[in-house]
Amino acid sequence: MEPKKLVTIEEMEAATERLLETGALVGADSWQQRVKNQTPHCKFGEEGICCRICSMGPCRITPKAPRGICGCDVHGIVARNFLRFTAGGSATHSDHGREICHTLHETREGGNYTVKDPEKLIRIATEWDIPTEGRDIYDLAHEVSETALLEYGKPFGTQRFLKRAPKERQEVWEREGIAPRAIDREVSQALHMTHMGCSSLPEALLKQSLRCGLSDGWGGSMMGTEFSDVLFGTPKPLDTTANLGVMDKDMVNIIVHGHDPSLSEMVVFYAQDPEMIALAKSVGAKGINVAGVCCTSNEVAMRHGIPMAGNFLQQENVVLTGACEAIVVDVQCIFPALGPLSKCFHTKFITTSNIARMPDSEFIQFSPENAGENAKAIVKMAVENFKNRKPELVYIPDIKETATVGYSVEAIEKTLDTVTNPFVDVTGTMKPLVECVESGVLRGAVAMVGCNNPRVRADYAHIELMKKLLKNDIILVLSGCSAQAAAKAGLMSKDAKELCGAGLKRVCELADIPPVLHMGSCVDISRMMILASRIAEDWGIDIPQIPLVGCAPEWMSEKAVSIGNYVVATGIDTFLGVSPQASGSSQVWDMLTGAGDNGYKQWVGANFTVETDVEKLGDLMIQRIEEKRAALGI
Amino acid sequence: MEPKKLVTIEEMEAATERLLETGALVGADSWQQRVKNQTPHCKFGEEGICCRICSMGPCRITPKAPRGICGCDVHGIVARNFLRFTAGGSATHSDHGREICHTLHETREGGNYTVKDPEKLIRIATEWDIPTEGRDIYDLAHEVSETALLEYGKPFGTQRFLKRAPKERQEVWEREGIAPRAIDREVSQALHMTHMGCSSLPEALLKQSLRCGLSDGWGGSMMGTEFSDVLFGTPKPLDTTANLGVMDKDMVNIIVHGHDPSLSEMVVFYAQDPEMIALAKSVGAKGINVAGVCCTSNEVAMRHGIPMAGNFLQQENVVLTGACEAIVVDVQCIFPALGPLSKCFHTKFITTSNIARMPDSEFIQFSPENAGENAKAIVKMAVENFKNRKPELVYIPDIKETATVGYSVEAIEKTLDTVTNPFVDVTGTMKPLVECVESGVLRGAVAMVGCNNPRVRADYAHIELMKKLLKNDIILVLSGCSAQAAAKAGLMSKDAKELCGAGLKRVCELADIPPVLHMGSCVDISRMMILASRIAEDWGIDIPQIPLVGCAPEWMSEKAVSIGNYVVATGIDTFLGVSPQASGSSQVWDMLTGAGDNGYKQWVGANFTVETDVEKLGDLMIQRIEEKRAALGI
Repeated sequence: MEPKKLVTIEEMEAATERLLETGALVGADSWQQRVKNQTPHCKFGEEGICCRICSMGPCRITPKAPRGICGCDVHGIVARNFLRFTAGGSATHSDHGREICHTLHETREGGNYTVKDPEKLIRIATEWDIPTEGRDIYDLAHEVSETALLEYGKPFGTQRFLKRAPKERQEVWEREGIAPRAIDREVSQALHMTHMGCSSLPEALLKQSLRCGLSDGWGGSMMGTEFSDVLFGTPKPLDTTANLGVMDKDMVNIIVHGHDPSLSEMVVFYAQDPEMIALAKSVGAKGINVAGVCCTSNEVAMRHGIPMAGNFLQQENVVLTGACEAIVVDVQCIFPALGPLSKCFHTKFITTSNIARMPDSEFIQFSPENAGENAKAIVKMAVENFKNRKPELVYIPDIKETATVGYSVEAIEKTLDTVTNPFVDVTGTMKPLVECVESGVLRGAVAMVGCNNPRVRADYAHIELMKKLLKNDIILVLSGCSAQAAAKAGLMSKDAKELCGAGLKRVCELADIPPVLHMGSCVDISRMMILASRIAEDWGIDIPQIPLVGCAPEWMSEKAVSIGNYVVATGIDTFLGVSPQASGSSQVWDMLTGAGDNGYKQWVGANFTVETDVEKLGDLMIQRIEEKRAALGI
Repeated sequence: MEPKKLVTIEEMEAATERLLETGALVGADSWQQRVKNQTPHCKFGEEGICCRICSMGPCRITPKAPRGICGCDVHGIVARNFLRFTAGGSATHSDHGREICHTLHETREGGNYTVKDPEKLIRIATEWDIPTEGRDIYDLAHEVSETALLEYGKPFGTQRFLKRAPKERQEVWEREGIAPRAIDREVSQALHMTHMGCSSLPEALLKQSLRCGLSDGWGGSMMGTEFSDVLFGTPKPLDTTANLGVMDKDMVNIIVHGHDPSLSEMVVFYAQDPEMIALAKSVGAKGINVAGVCCTSNEVAMRHGIPMAGNFLQQENVVLTGACEAIVVDVQCIFPALGPLSKCFHTKFITTSNIARMPDSEFIQFSPENAGENAKAIVKMAVENFKNRKPELVYIPDIKETATVGYSVEAIEKTLDTVTNPFVDVTGTMKPLVECVESGVLRGAVAMVGCNNPRVRADYAHIELMKKLLKNDIILVLSGCSAQAAAKAGLMSKDAKELCGAGLKRVCELADIPPVLHMGSCVDISRMMILASRIAEDWGIDIPQIPLVGCAPEWMSEKAVSIGNYVVATGIDTFLGVSPQASGSSQVWDMLTGAGDNGYKQWVGANFTVETDVEKLGDLMIQRIEEKRAALGI
């Protein structure tokens, strides 16, 4: 059989070009134009050698000015900036997790939010030594949520979920002083350490980066993931479609965008309300079509099969189709540009969170108490806006691929059980996967995550790297905008096995999976941490030994750096296609990248590798995986 | 009597010049040189219009590039930077407060730390509804400290100390949605709101600045202050001396520098240890002399009369005397420059906190458990270092003034009681002070606080403004580096009454106080908030009506901006001599400064005024005080 004909990046770019023509017609701004306006960027900022932490400055390090006014040298400045960047991401992810915990606290029988996966709730309660026997599930939910919320601010002790990691990992974290305490405390301490006149020793600042990252990945993000599952259901494999072609010119199109499923779940629910559908028909539409952008898209795709309209750098495109009645957002990665852009069309730009207030938007404050009512109001507003469409501006590119999404750890475990002989083997383990890697049928795995960034041709690095890795029998687990890149390119379709090497292809066939597994949104990288831990335990090795690496080829946000820190701290080498703004300090750079004799590699057994050439980045990952195989003697 | 002859700023500067000559001899760097190297500063940074929040940028706003790549406009960028600056300060102050709470948790009978003010502890416990009756004081201390620590991370509710504010204030905070919840949560939320793709609406960002500031002033800082008093004693008026002349060429000079009294209290204690004094004599010194720099200096001056060697921009000078055996630091406002500088002399630069690790220092980790032992080791190290002095480098400027320090709210109340007729009047109130202001004997009060900043001639603004205000019968309450500026200039001496207008002079004589009242360190600005609340309540008016303003003429740090936010949120107009890095947005600027019709003034009844001309800044404060008097009809 011929390799599946994939939509090419050039075809996607042509679609964008066509949409930008519509934009030009209505005088819309675009990120493509803004990138031009902002280029070249400030080199001091790019290298991390500008300090704006106190008002004696800004100070910038040059050969003529080797120290800031306080006397901080370039290494201290770069390391402080790096820690602050990490703290921004950790706080952001974790605050999302906190909202989920608060939503869990508001669940009640017949309420706006209910417990959809009681089994998982009981499992977590048991793990946390909370009595479960004979208890009302909502009573239990409230106690678990209160315990969870205290993980943000308890005065003593470290994060509860750390115990999920292999014992060796836990020992490493203790030894290095990076086992995270209360999540918010790590954020506050990061700011304190980087305040004027506090830490300027790179080692101390980078260790706090690791700790702050861990408080995200094994704290806030993990709680975000786990309790989202409890609230909305643990993902199972589901079919969906991806790319702008999922929008429908005959339907009311509502785009949900952001990260927190508490909003989008409700919008999805009310978009299926017969009353709303009838209303849509009454205004001349065939119905209501909800599609997602960014991680919100991942959340509703993996639980309801809601189509994925696109990822980060495609968010303006959904408006540019002229067929978007409402773009409803919660938090994070939302272009403020959507405000003025929506004014060029009939689109309603609806903000819903106190965390993300934007000019030129309609603000409908969302809370667990009013969620149903407000979601319905939003859907209604979108439906009623259908009549304001300007038909001459409507153009929806005809590109769309199918994808199978929703590979939670639980789903992966179930999938592996299907290839296990229950009469001979133990089920519920990662052993079948381990055996595939040990035998060489699979060479290893890559966890590919992260954003888009205009510094990289949009989606190009994601897609090209995936294709290369698949050919080399390396299985992929994905989340975030990387997942949408894959879905748009057809790589999450089961047909994509045709692009794989013989070993991976066989695995796909046997397990009936796509070669690129969708694990969810960016908080769901915590799922990958659990997966890695499970593999290490079932294999009897420590995480850094697994032929597994992480990759964020087009990362952009502070969250990505927080993620990078916890992925590396978990023992997974991580490959970056965009340079962290830390190149100005040789000391910091060496510590991050494993070049020196005192840094991430020595502390946690893994490090970053930065390579902006996509081809080389892929080669380096394959090489690292092969090195790990060789070290294991397989 | 002739006005007291004060040391002039020119004399202080001449002393610094002389010390810099020593520096030049040994090849030392200096802040004066580094300021030259770093000038001119980046204008984008100075105006707050550079965004480094994600790695698509940095983005800088220009006429050609009016929006960042994400589409954020200049107002969003400036407001986000302002909120992050505030959050940095709030986290820093509050984390200091947290350490104090942890120290309180470690108190025990006969331990390194004990409860020195049980009465205050019981008062706070009662305020917090913690049973006190018949309880062991350490049992109580531990419960109070645990409750206090939960103020950092409790999942529900707002700060306990808010109830100390007048009811009208509490209502304003509720109305505006700025009553702070858990301290660390406000910090994390600030980072979340400013993350890429979250808030870009100035109003939302500035309200969070107020809330984050309030969580510091009425949360972390207030707990820092209150529990420091419980641990180390509530300050009472004490005499001390100030300026570099407090160092003694015949003694072992130990400089304590930073902010957290947990360290300095112990160093002070062991410097008085007969064993250590004998050791000092055995190495040829006459004894051991401890002096302070920055807020640590305020802490030990107001509790033990330890002399003040200087403030922020004098920290290098203490080393340049060649007579500093050890500079022992904890956290915040410590020049990393002290590392390399100390290497040019025999001085030991000793860092003690995980929060403030610096290159070229000796690190002796301090904790409540090992505090005694390590303090003794530090003192010993300093004593043994005496022999390494290079006599040819020793020069201690012969300038020193006397000062009366230690005016806690409790001490002010007691002082006011002395001018009350206990047979006629109620004691324990602020009424005598209110009457002085009502009658016009005093025109009003200024709370002058904050740092030095090389953007302003060091100490000049502090001292000149104070002199001007005193002449105008305006009483001053001071903290932080402003306090040391006053002390160095002799303005905290009771003799300084001679510089005052007739009304203030008479008050000083009657109450036997200096006209400039030392209220402590920068966390102790919380004392000023309580003072203002007490005055408002005893007067029967709301805080913004009091003829009282705040002033930070030479502020420098993020903490200062957090302070500014809570002082303004408390209803006190605040005058700044250094511009916040927010001038790039007219919207933000107007909101901060009360120029528009929607901003701080409308939300909380007070705002910032920025004026870099010292003379004009003083005039504006006097004018505002007179306006408030006029509004009260007095």
